[in-house]
Order: sequence, then structure tokens, then C-alpha cells
Amino acid sequence: MNLRNKNLIKPPCLNGKSIEHKRQELKDYFLQTWAQYESLFSLINDSKAYYLRPEPLRHPLIFYFGHTATFYINKLRLGKFIDQRLNGKLEAICAVGVDEMSWDDLNSEHYDWPSVNEVIEYRQQVSVLIEKLIDTMELTLPIKQNSLAWVILMGCEHERIHIETSSVIMRMLPLSYLTANENWPTCDETGVAPENELVKVDGQKVVFGKPESDDTFGWDNEYGYDSITLNNFETSKYLVSNQEYIAFVKANGYQQTQYWTNEGQQWLAFTHATMPRFWCEKVNDSGNKAYYQRNLLNEIPLPLNWPVEVNYLEAKAFCNWKNKTYREGNIRLPTESEWLCMRNQLEGDLIDWQSVPGNIDLAFYASSCPVDKFSQGNDLFDIVGNVWQWTESSIDGFQGFEVHPLYDDFSTPTFDGKHNLIKGGSWISTGNEAMKHSRYAFRRHFFQHAGFRYVKSDHQPLPNLASNHYETNVDICRQLHAHYGEIRSNKPPTAKNYSQQIAEQVLASAEKYQISKQKCLDLGCSVGRVSFILAQYFSQLDGVDFSAGYIRHGVNLQQGNSIRYTLENEGDIVDFHEVKLTDVDLPRGDNIHFSQGDASNLKSIFSGYDIILAQHVLEQSYDPRLFLKKVHQRLNANGLLIVVSNYHFDEQQANKSTWLGGIKVNGENVTGFDGLSAILTPHFTLLEQHQLTRTLKINQRNFELSFPHLTVWQLK
Amino acid sequence: MNLRNKNLIKPPCLNGKSIEHKRQELKDYFLQTWAQYESLFSLINDSKAYYLRPEPLRHPLIFYFGHTATFYINKLRLGKFIDQRLNGKLEAICAVGVDEMSWDDLNSEHYDWPSVNEVIEYRQQVSVLIEKLIDTMELTLPIKQNSLAWVILMGCEHERIHIETSSVIMRMLPLSYLTANENWPTCDETGVAPENELVKVDGQKVVFGKPESDDTFGWDNEYGYDSITLNNFETSKYLVSNQEYIAFVKANGYQQTQYWTNEGQQWLAFTHATMPRFWCEKVNDSGNKAYYQRNLLNEIPLPLNWPVEVNYLEAKAFCNWKNKTYREGNIRLPTESEWLCMRNQLEGDLIDWQSVPGNIDLAFYASSCPVDKFSQGNDLFDIVGNVWQWTESSIDGFQGFEVHPLYDDFSTPTFDGKHNLIKGGSWISTGNEAMKHSRYAFRRHFFQHAGFRYVKSDHQPLPNLASNHYETNVDICRQLHAHYGEIRSNKPPTAKNYSQQIAEQVLASAEKYQISKQKCLDLGCSVGRVSFILAQYFSQLDGVDFSAGYIRHGVNLQQGNSIRYTLENEGDIVDFHEVKLTDVDLPRGDNIHFSQGDASNLKSIFSGYDIILAQHVLEQSYDPRLFLKKVHQRLNANGLLIVVSNYHFDEQQANKSTWLGGIKVNGENVTGFDGLSAILTPHFTLLEQHQLTRTLKINQRNFELSFPHLTVWQLK
Repeated sequence: MNLRNKNLIKPPCLNGKSIEHKRQELKDYFLQTWAQYESLFSLINDSKAYYLRPEPLRHPLIFYFGHTATFYINKLRLGKFIDQRLNGKLEAICAVGVDEMSWDDLNSEHYDWPSVNEVIEYRQQVSVLIEKLIDTMELTLPIKQNSLAWVILMGCEHERIHIETSSVIMRMLPLSYLTANENWPTCDETGVAPENELVKVDGQKVVFGKPESDDTFGWDNEYGYDSITLNNFETSKYLVSNQEYIAFVKANGYQQTQYWTNEGQQWLAFTHATMPRFWCEKVNDSGNKAYYQRNLLNEIPLPLNWPVEVNYLEAKAFCNWKNKTYREGNIRLPTESEWLCMRNQLEGDLIDWQSVPGNIDLAFYASSCPVDKFSQGNDLFDIVGNVWQWTESSIDGFQGFEVHPLYDDFSTPTFDGKHNLIKGGSWISTGNEAMKHSRYAFRRHFFQHAGFRYVKSDHQPLPNLASNHYETNVDICRQLHAHYGEIRSNKPPTAKNYSQQIAEQVLASAEKYQISKQKCLDLGCSVGRVSFILAQYFSQLDGVDFSAGYIRHGVNLQQGNSIRYTLENEGDIVDFHEVKLTDVDLPRGDNIHFSQGDASNLKSIFSGYDIILAQHVLEQSYDPRLFLKKVHQRLNANGLLIVVSNYHFDEQQANKSTWLGGIKVNGENVTGFDGLSAILTPHFTLLEQHQLTRTLKINQRNFELSFPHLTVWQLK
Repeated sequence: MNLRNKNLIKPPCLNGKSIEHKRQELKDYFLQTWAQYESLFSLINDSKAYYLRPEPLRHPLIFYFGHTATFYINKLRLGKFIDQRLNGKLEAICAVGVDEMSWDDLNSEHYDWPSVNEVIEYRQQVSVLIEKLIDTMELTLPIKQNSLAWVILMGCEHERIHIETSSVIMRMLPLSYLTANENWPTCDETGVAPENELVKVDGQKVVFGKPESDDTFGWDNEYGYDSITLNNFETSKYLVSNQEYIAFVKANGYQQTQYWTNEGQQWLAFTHATMPRFWCEKVNDSGNKAYYQRNLLNEIPLPLNWPVEVNYLEAKAFCNWKNKTYREGNIRLPTESEWLCMRNQLEGDLIDWQSVPGNIDLAFYASSCPVDKFSQGNDLFDIVGNVWQWTESSIDGFQGFEVHPLYDDFSTPTFDGKHNLIKGGSWISTGNEAMKHSRYAFRRHFFQHAGFRYVKSDHQPLPNLASNHYETNVDICRQLHAHYGEIRSNKPPTAKNYSQQIAEQVLASAEKYQISKQKCLDLGCSVGRVSFILAQYFSQLDGVDFSAGYIRHGVNLQQGNSIRYTLENEGDIVDFHEVKLTDVDLPRGDNIHFSQGDASNLKSIFSGYDIILAQHVLEQSYDPRLFLKKVHQRLNANGLLIVVSNYHFDEQQANKSTWLGGIKVNGENVTGFDGLSAILTPHFTLLEQHQLTRTLKINQRNFELSFPHLTVWQLK
């Protein structure tokens, strides 16, 4: 084998003893990344090629050529590490890529792209600036996320990502625009693929997440903690080869919608694809039609023993076809946990390896290679390297996920259930991309140097982490923050959490009037904090809210999960939050039953309560009278009804004819409390009333401040 | 003369020494009012008449028969003086009259009116209840506005008003439904009227408003203080008689729109009126067409020497016609001040008079009488009594006006410029109606037993008080309250008034950086408080706001006027406020020039400032950059720009492309402060920044709480 195995410089460690040595390490890593990027672009032999758009959903290459340099400047300015721009026009035009997340968003904007020389000159300026920054910056070890050194590392890893994505775009350029050189060698080993087979993988507890203590740079989505315990399963020994996949193509797999997901069918209808993106069918030298494969720098007869390169939708369709054809069942793509389980068969990571164990890190080829070339782990091949492997897992943050403040949209826009993880890296994955904890995810129709392996498993459901997307409904987010998140804010300086105020009044009333603490109803429980507090004192607690969108968060918290939500910081800028019960020192409350329910039409099973708390139910019901008129039937003898309301009736919420107050009735002003009292008085005695203080954060500078009324009524 | 002069009981005084004596007085007054009401209704000889609607804009008489009794119950319940209703259905259906304010609101609702006997029985129950309350209530002297005794007096005076208005409706019933009796005698003195003539009235300073110390009950609109100094003027010696008015009718006055206001023309088009409402033209005994007049209980050939009864629109048209016809000019209706000037010629008031000086208080007739029957004052007739006299003054509250909390819509809905005052009382005006300070106002098309006299005066403009209607624009009201009104609220307990916080920062910066205090611009001055504070320290202060709706309040305050506004209490219920500069211990600031101006397109004269303060201008401009980019040209050397903003940009206010921040620019988060700094930095140095605290009251229980950012920039 003609293995070059010319390892690139490893990513710098965050720790170290010598500051000056670390400076040099950073500079070397920066410069080598920089040089590698320019080396890739040097394959282009005609500047015209920079302005073509072989993939209409992406910018032309001139954008990417400038983009990685402008990224440094834009992030350095954002972090206030530099004051001045170098080239405002370039830093604007090369700042925002076409959203790679959607295949049907055509971008028809007109761009006034710079010349190649302009970008080359600009890159030179940026390089000088970064080198000078590295030489002169304050540097303390270990390198922390808020440091300038971290931003430099971020810039390097960002550029390494674009080495890979640019190579994918170049793979779509007409070959005439590219000239191969010895730094970018295509593998020449082609032939028949081995028969794939299933190999047993031992189940284990898989732990997710790069530890905070890890010694290398990581993107935000890598940190945090989660775990899944896997049963034994089987996996394909090799990546699926062109040879294995061609059977699906020849079986008219692309024409049979039964194998395709809905999304896959839509993609097929849009693209009219009939084979993988980098295949083509041509008349060969013998005058017969034959398949060819386009690599970065050449086109060759379809190398049957190389991995097929497809998107998730195609890989998924293949598995479905395989299940159907061979009646095996249970063949599917691995999940992230299953891939990690395989990955655990490899020792060490990129920074430990003396020589890399596969076709990765540009150590061998500027192309794929045979699927049976790199044996890894227990009788498997290509656990890492060659091409990325699609998984059945959509990306999400682990527990404890936090965005990096200088790149808050690196990951969060992909936490939407529409971006699936690819694992393992390809021949051109370097730096962070090639490391164990890295997590890259793309829309399921997207092309990278990516293929797949499959697994066979009885695991039901899929061994995926529960998805935990950011709640973005503004009202729900405000409630989540008010219930669980505001302890992190230092303003406004209100006395006590609002839910806590309510719960304390309920408990104080129960004590004062010697009410049994068997059964309590928390009506209008929202995202549940009052329920969690009261459940510590009552035998049974029913939390009911009109909206399932709120209830589901209570249920999730009860299950020990954390909840993610966004909150406006200013305008379109949002803050990302994650909360869990332990943040507010509350137990899970196994005696709570959360359910969706309509206060104005509450099921009869909701009865026999010692205390009914109605939180903001009056003003949020379409007809509060329907609730109030019969609530006495739901209470035990001497039971308490505790009503919290700001009497803020609103025509958006309820027809004015149903308002309890804030209206003229027969010509006289009737307040909400008047209306409430009129209905309750026949069955209840008013024991006490209190004014509460509630603040609801709207954004960084604006809050709603209100003084709701809490009234305690005892059944006569 | 057959003068009966049987004086009714006088209204009780508020003061007194004997509680028991006062109880008796109150009871007598209540019972006599009650009896008088029933006496009036006893003129109806057929219960069918109770359900007719001779005036389609008013309820049938059965409503009014029940209404004055239900009024007691509804107000007593509102004031929490009683707990129970006597008859919920009746108290609902007889509670709200058809709005007497508009002549084109047809009321087509279906009412399920009670029977006459039901109302009689109900009145009996109410009477028993009120008598018992009078006997048993806590009573301290003097009677205060918040006492039960005041509510009883209010009920009496309310019923006396309806004695009069019901008599007007009865005057529209077919005569066959009414049977005269000796308690309701029509005057029989008819004949030719004296020639009217103008009599000189000496000018004087007329003082408005019933003193708080007055010893009788008054409606809310009577209290407060104002004054106008009048020049000498002339007034018609007599009320305008039928004889004087018939010339206008015969001159086709009702057909010639030139004499009529726009409102008068609309009314004519709607009603097709050709003569006064209580006239009709019939064939008389001689077979000739002749005019007749309908009185309460009979119809007689037009009594030429009685006062004509018309609405304001007709009276006004008559004056216009008279000016045109006789080329005299300056003939018009008197204003409230001019009527008061005449009224000052009469000594004492109803409670002082041994015998009443005119056809008023039901002392003589149940009808009008000749205009030359009651000589009063200096050669005038009917300053009070006979029929009400329309004025040129629309009603408004005097300075210091406050609504009575149990009847907050007695006056306020009429403070709209559409309700003109009638003065002097009619033959059936009793109690408060017949007193000097009383102020009743009706829509200008409305009919009462009302006519007019005219004046001739050179006074320009009309000697009316400036109108001071309640501001009701929600945003402006909230600003007025935040600037001037919040001292009356005890919540939320914020440190210091927001305008005060800003002004203090401006003054502190001026001091600290030794800035000259010649000229200051307060841009976004809203309703002006910061301008008023700063004007004490600067030689010249320009207050500029985008909206004239705000500026006009600053101007008004500067002129020493008070400002009225409403603020939501709860839902449709509002609180009424009145503020003036002295409430917040501020001088008028003669060195302030308030003007409307657009920050994004500010005139060049706004320059040469030592300090420019921009309050919430950034987020309220359609393009804040237009202001910021050139603001340095408006400052003197070393001048300060002080910017206050919460950076709350909003697409309703400005296109997102103009936002300074809260957006992604070239992919990176840019805050409002970032955007502000980017524009200002070339010309300014940031000296300091502070966080302010602002609360804006929304209603009784809800506030907006924000923490705006104040930044101080010095011109480089």
C-alpha cells in the first residue's frame, strides 16, 4: 500500500505550562489551517470557477474563499477583541452563507462578489492581524471559552469545516476548472467489494458529551452529559459500498415511493434523482452504458468497493428496501449512541494517535478508498474515516448545553428535529471534525462526503436521547422563566418568586384554617412550579392547565428532564436557557398528576379536594362563570378555594359578556372582584385577601409588573 | 294675579346641630320628592300610556317610573351600604336610560317592561327601605360626599331631575292619556308679548364653581374654581317669546340653511322640523290655519307672550337670522359666564328665599307664563325660571373637578364639547335644579322646557372658559400619569419619578463636565416634565416631540392650565385625573419653547446646543440613523449628547432595516447600544452610562417596568 500517512499538526491542547510555547502552537495551527485552505483553493485553475454555482442552493466558491477570513474579523469584533474592520464590504458580503438547512429555499439575491485577488489580498491582511494578535495577546492557561485564544481556535476549526464543505462544492465543478497536484492524491485502489455482513456489537452504557475538563477545543453542542444503556446489536462490518447500493438503484429503488419517507418523496419530486449525487451514467469505452463516480479531482468508473455517498433520505430508503427485499426486518441506520458504542472500540482520539487508524485527517487520500482497507475495533472497518456515516439521530443539545456567546447560532438553529447527525468523519475531516466528541448535523437531504453503515437491532424505541428542543412559544417561555429561570436574573429585584408567594399563601391558609392536606387541585398550573412546591405537603396534587403546551413542561420536569427555552434579549436576539427542578431545589413530586383540562368545563373526576387553587383562571377562561358556579361541588366540607387573579379581562381571550368585571353592569361599575364575590358568596365565606407581586420578563430591559389579588374562600 | 307660590320643602343643609333633626329633614325631603314624582305620574289616566314611545329616542315612561327607585338600590349596593337587591330584574331593566346624548342613535332593543302595578309595589318597597335607612343610618354632620346621607340626597336630586325630564316626555303624549288636576295648574295668562329690547349689563369678574364649603348638595360638575372677567354687554330684557320667534318661522327660517350650523342642518335633515317641537299648526274655530302650543296638560292657541321653547340649534339659527335681517351683528346666545353675571343681580339662592322670585320650583304653574311676568335684577325678566335658557357654553369641569366615585358617569360623558349648558331652570325645576350653581347640559338638539334669551357683545373670543376635556388617548394618558400623576399612586414603590431621574443625570453631567447651561434641547420631550425641570437651570430650553398630541399638554401646563386624563382602572372602568405643574412643584418655565418636530428630519434651527437630550427617540423614530448621523452638527464645542433608550425596536414603529440593533448584521448579533455606538463613535466620546428605572401604569394592577439605558456622549 502506498500509504502516505502524513499527519497534520494536531489541534492544540487547552492546557500547557509554557505560554510562549502555546503561542507558537496556536500560531502553527492557525497557519497550517490557513495554508491547507489555500492549498485546496489552489486546485482551481481558472478564476471563473469561483463564480459558478454548481449547487444552486449554495454560494459560489468566492464566498467561501473569503468567508473563513471574515469570520475571524466578525467574531473578534463581536468579542470586542478588535475595534476596526479591515474591509467592511467584504466582511459583510462574505459573512452569511446561504442557509444550508433547506433544499427548497432558492436564494436569488444579487451579490456583488469581490475579485479573487481582492480576497487573496484580504486574506493576507487578516493573516497578519491574527499572527500579531497571537503574538501579543494576553494568554493564560488553560485556554478558557471566553478568551481570545478560544476565538482563534474557533476560527481555525471553522476554517477546517469549510475545507471540507468547499471540497464538496468543488466536487460539483466541471473537472476542467481543477488541476490535481501531489498534495491531493486520489486513491487508485478500485475493485470488487467484499460481501457485507453483520457483526455483533456488545451493548453497554454509552455516555454522551465532551467533559468540561477536556483538553481540546469543542463546539457548544459537544458539551453536557447524557447516557443510554444499549442492548447488544449487530452492525454491518463495512460501510455500504457502491456495489451493495447499486442493487437498490437497479431494483428501481428511486422510483418506488414505498421505500421513501415523506420527506424523501418530496426530495425526489424536487430533484428527480435516480442515483447518488456523485454518480453518473455514461457510455464507456466499450460503447456500453456504465456508471462513473465523480471524485474531487477526477471521474472514474464506479469504484464498487468504495463507500456509496448518499444523503440520509437515500440511506434510509436503502434500509427500507433491504428490509423488504430480504425480509430480514430491523435493518436501519445506527443512532448516535450505537455509533458511539462502536467508536468506543477504538482507543484514544486524534490528539493521542501516533498514526491515524483510517482514511481521515487527510492522512492518506484526497478521496474515498475501499471499504475493506482500514480494519478498526472488533472486526469492523471504517468506524472513523473514509466517508461520514448518517445516523437516525437528529441533533440536540445534551443536558447542560449552553451556547457560546460569540457563536450563538452555531448549533441552536439545528436543534429542530430536521438535522441528523453524521459521525466518523471523512478523508478530509481534520482537527475537531476528526475527533470523537464532535457532532455535526445537516438537513437530511444534504450532501457531504457521506454514506452509511447499517445496524440490526431489536431495540424499541430507537436508542436515541429524548429530543429536547428549545421551547420558543413566547408566552410559554416567559412562564418557564418566571417559574424556574428568574433566579439567574438579578433584576428586577423582587422579593420572592411569584409561584413561591402563591404556594406559601396556600400553605399558610391550610395551616391557619386547619384544612386537611389530602388532595389539592392546582388549576391553571401553567408550567407547574406551584404544583411541585405544594406536592411536598399534600398527599395528592392534580395540576391542570388549559393548554397542553404548558402541561408538557411540568410532565417533563417531573420525569427529571431539563427544559430548554429561549427568551428575547433584545429584538431578534434571544438568550438560551435550560432549567430543571433541582435548580430550584424541588423534588420531582411523584404524587402530582398533570393533565390538560378546561376550567370552564372540568371533568367531574376533579372533585373531593381540600383545597382548590385557581391561578389566573378567571381571566384566561372563555367563561369563568361556568367554573365558579359549580366549584363548591368539587370541595370537601370546609374546603378552601383560593383564587389568584389580576382581573385583566381581555376581549381577545373572552367575549365581554363573560367578563366577571371591568365593565358596567346595569350602568354601574363592577370590578372583577365584585363579580367574583357575587358568584361565590352563596356558597363561600371570604376569609382573607392579599396582594401579590409578579414580574414577568419580556426581554433584557422590559418586564411586566403586576399586583395580582389572592383571595381565600371557605365553603360554607 | 293668581299666584299660588306654594314653596316646596327646601333642600336640606349639609350642616346642622341636631342629628335627629337632620334625619327628619332628610326623610321629609326624600318623601316629598317621592310624592311629587308619583303626583306627576298620577296625571296619566291609562296604563297604556306608560308603554308608548312618543319620543323614539327615549324609553317609555314605565322605565322612568321605575328608574328613580332602582337608582337608589343600585347606588346603595355600589357604595356597599346594602347587600341585597329587592328585585334584580327590575333593577337591571330600569337601570340604564337610552343615551340622551345622541339624536341619531335609534334604540331598537327589545325590553320586557314590568307592569305599572309591579313598579308601584316596587316603589313602595324601596321607600320603606330608604326610610328605614334614614332612621337607622350612622349620621354625622356635616354630611360628607362619601356618606350614606349623601347618597340619599343624590337619589332625591336624581328623582327631581326625572320629574322634569318625565314631564317633557308626558308633554309629547296624546292629551287623552292625561287628566289635569289642581296640583298641576296651567297658566292662563296669554296675550301679546312686549317688544323685546337690549338692556345693559355691567361687566365684572365672574367666579365659577360651588365652593367645597357650600352647605348644600351638589353634583360633581358644580365644584372647582375658575373665573372670567367680562366687559359690559347687553342682554335681551325678556326671554325670546313665541311672538318674537314666529317672525323667524314665517321668514322661512327653517328652510334656509344659511342660518343653521352644520349640526343644525343635519338635525333639520333628520327631523324635517318646520317650527318648534311643541308648536303645531291647525285649522282653528274660524276655519283658518293657526299655531297652537302643546303644554304638559293642554293645547292652546299659541301664547305669543310666553317664551318660545326650542333647542340650541334653533336658538342659534334665530340669532343668526336676526343678525342678518337687522344687520345688527353680535347678537348671540349668552355664555355661562354672561348668564352668571346676570344671575349675580339676584340675591341669595333657593334655600335663602322666602318666596321664589320667578316661575320656578313649581311655585306657580305647571307651565310657562308670560315673559314679562317676573321682573328680576336690574330691569330684566326671567333670569331664573319660566323656561331654561340655552347658552353658547359647552359643559366641562372646572379646575379641580373630581368625579363622585358612586356616579362617575354623571358628568364625564358630557365633557365632550357636544353638550351645551342650559341655565336658569324652568317652572318644574326644583331642588338642586333651581339653584345658582347647578349645571345641566344636553346635546344641542335636545328638548327640555327650554328657550333662550340673547345678548349683544363685542367680546372676542366668546367669554367661555377654555375647554379642558379628558385626554383619552391611552398612550398619552400613560405618559401624563408617569410624568405628573404617579405621585398619587402608592404602587409600585419606585425610588424616584422617571423624568426626575433623567433630569438629574443631565444636570449632574452638565456639572461634572462643566458644560455651559445656555441652551438645551429635550428631544422626545413627550408631555414635558423633563423640560420643566431643566428649564430651571438652562437659559433656553427647546422641548420637541414628534407628536403634537403630547406637545399640546406641555404647552397647556406652561400656560398654567391643568390637564385632565383618564387611566384604566380595570377593563372598561377608568379613573379620572387632573394634574397641573404645581402638583409637582414646578414653575411654568417661560424659557421653554415646545414644538412639534421629527427627530429624523429636524429643522436646522435646532442647533447651537450645549446639551441635547434624546429621550426614547431612537426606538420611536422611523429612522434613528438620520438623527444620529448629523446630531454632532447641532452641538456646541464639547457639547453633550445624552441618549435614553430601552432599545425596544418594533416593526410597528419602524422597518426592521432601520433598527439600530436587536438584529443580526452580517450574521452577528448587534444590540441597540452597539448600533448607537457605531454611529456616534466618529464624532463622540462615551463618557458614562447608567441604568434607569421606569414604571408605566397600565391599570390598577398592571405596570410596565423597564430599565432604560442612559448614555452620555461628548462631542470630540
